[in-house]
Amino acid sequence: MEHIEAIKEFGGWLNRYCHDSVSCHCAMTFSVYLPPQAATEKVPAVYWLSGLTCTDDNFRVKAGAQRYAAELGLALVIPDTSPRGAEIPDVPDRYDLGQGAGFYVNATQPPWSKNYQMYDYVTRELPALVEAELPLIPGLRSITGHSMGGHGALVCALKEPGAYQSVSAFAPICHPMASGWGQGCFKAYLGNDRESWAAYDTVRLIEAGATTMPLLIDQGTADEFLSQQLHTPSLERVCAARKIPLTLRMQDGYDHSYHFIATFIGEHLAWHAQALRAA
Amino acid sequence: MEHIEAIKEFGGWLNRYCHDSVSCHCAMTFSVYLPPQAATEKVPAVYWLSGLTCTDDNFRVKAGAQRYAAELGLALVIPDTSPRGAEIPDVPDRYDLGQGAGFYVNATQPPWSKNYQMYDYVTRELPALVEAELPLIPGLRSITGHSMGGHGALVCALKEPGAYQSVSAFAPICHPMASGWGQGCFKAYLGNDRESWAAYDTVRLIEAGATTMPLLIDQGTADEFLSQQLHTPSLERVCAARKIPLTLRMQDGYDHSYHFIATFIGEHLAWHAQALRAA
Repeated sequence: MEHIEAIKEFGGWLNRYCHDSVSCHCAMTFSVYLPPQAATEKVPAVYWLSGLTCTDDNFRVKAGAQRYAAELGLALVIPDTSPRGAEIPDVPDRYDLGQGAGFYVNATQPPWSKNYQMYDYVTRELPALVEAELPLIPGLRSITGHSMGGHGALVCALKEPGAYQSVSAFAPICHPMASGWGQGCFKAYLGNDRESWAAYDTVRLIEAGATTMPLLIDQGTADEFLSQQLHTPSLERVCAARKIPLTLRMQDGYDHSYHFIATFIGEHLAWHAQALRAA
Repeated sequence: MEHIEAIKEFGGWLNRYCHDSVSCHCAMTFSVYLPPQAATEKVPAVYWLSGLTCTDDNFRVKAGAQRYAAELGLALVIPDTSPRGAEIPDVPDRYDLGQGAGFYVNATQPPWSKNYQMYDYVTRELPALVEAELPLIPGLRSITGHSMGGHGALVCALKEPGAYQSVSAFAPICHPMASGWGQGCFKAYLGNDRESWAAYDTVRLIEAGATTMPLLIDQGTADEFLSQQLHTPSLERVCAARKIPLTLRMQDGYDHSYHFIATFIGEHLAWHAQALRAA
């Protein structure tokens, strides 16, 4: 992997890398914040999955997470949200399909299936790469994300028992099969057989018996996407039915923006740090 | 003034306003973060002046300052860096002249002089407006900023004794008359008489006898503009000669970006809070 940028921040280093992805068959860019502790020892990592339209840049610029990561001795691993490039399938006039909208699935349908393998990329290729090349403790990972990336974090944790020490989400798309955003992407990437979509749907995975460690979710009550896209009550219902320990915090007056994320990212990172230290 | 946006963050509200500026003869946009304390009492304000190319948005999105402001009970007042609009003079292919590059001076030269009155706007019109309309303690202000805005903060404090309780800066343009950025703007806005530029030059103001409260300045050693544009050693020299108490912290390995600002903004706001509490 090529080290293309290093910016000092909170005593550590915000790095950006580019590499040829085997999963996605294209060059992929990602960022890793290494806290000051990583200069002398290996550290655990929290993976951040971003939402629609984001690259690795949004979180590192807007969330204010590096301060907490430096205090807690956590690395932050921040992948892109899709394969990208002139040769990569896209729908340029859609923000919610194609580049910037990988939805953390392995696409099975043309023309997407060659490159849109974000589930494998995020759960397998990227961890193997950064744990081999950077001062990270192998296998000691947690995962979180926002909106489409909150969906991604929940699905990764549910489908990969033991791979993550903890999981949380900000305003996740809990039930993408029931949301316009999810339906558009799942139909394109996974095809018309809606039952195949259930493999990447948090509500359906839990209904089917997937278990997980406790879930921490923050959701703003003034989130403009809450009623149509996120389906938070469906998650509450299935967690109650399946006895999944869910801490769902409805945050009064908060919206869907990075200002909401910035407000609570410190508590999420502290939650992950506790789980990672206990591992 | 028109209240055009309110976003909840850290228990307070990040507001954006638009108003018809008397100084600049155009509509001006600015942001004010009101901490949770402002719901029940008036609070002191820290003014943030941004650098070249910025609007009010950069600082509120990238600096991570709202967390500290909420903890310390400080409002953040964030003006734009120039007048803006289709009718406002500009040099569209220049990032360092015209819109986005007001340099916090009162222009005297056509075509700039009608609108580019940013010194009056920042030191007089905006404080009077926000102190009349928002829960701010009248007259209880501090000021800071970055690069061109660091220059602006220092100049405002030097030229307005008593108006601010404290002043600090991040990577300020200390001696704009000696920097390419400053020379380009001062020549356009103030004309060919270079002695007229000294009224907005920190080094020259201090040489001429202006005094100020102690200065806190952070400067990254890996700042790509340090050697050519910022002239930090000239400020050190005149502060020593004139017995101005300067705390200049050369921060090893930090660049000119908002990642640098984010790292140290908490310490600056704590410094301002201490001065504002003591007032």
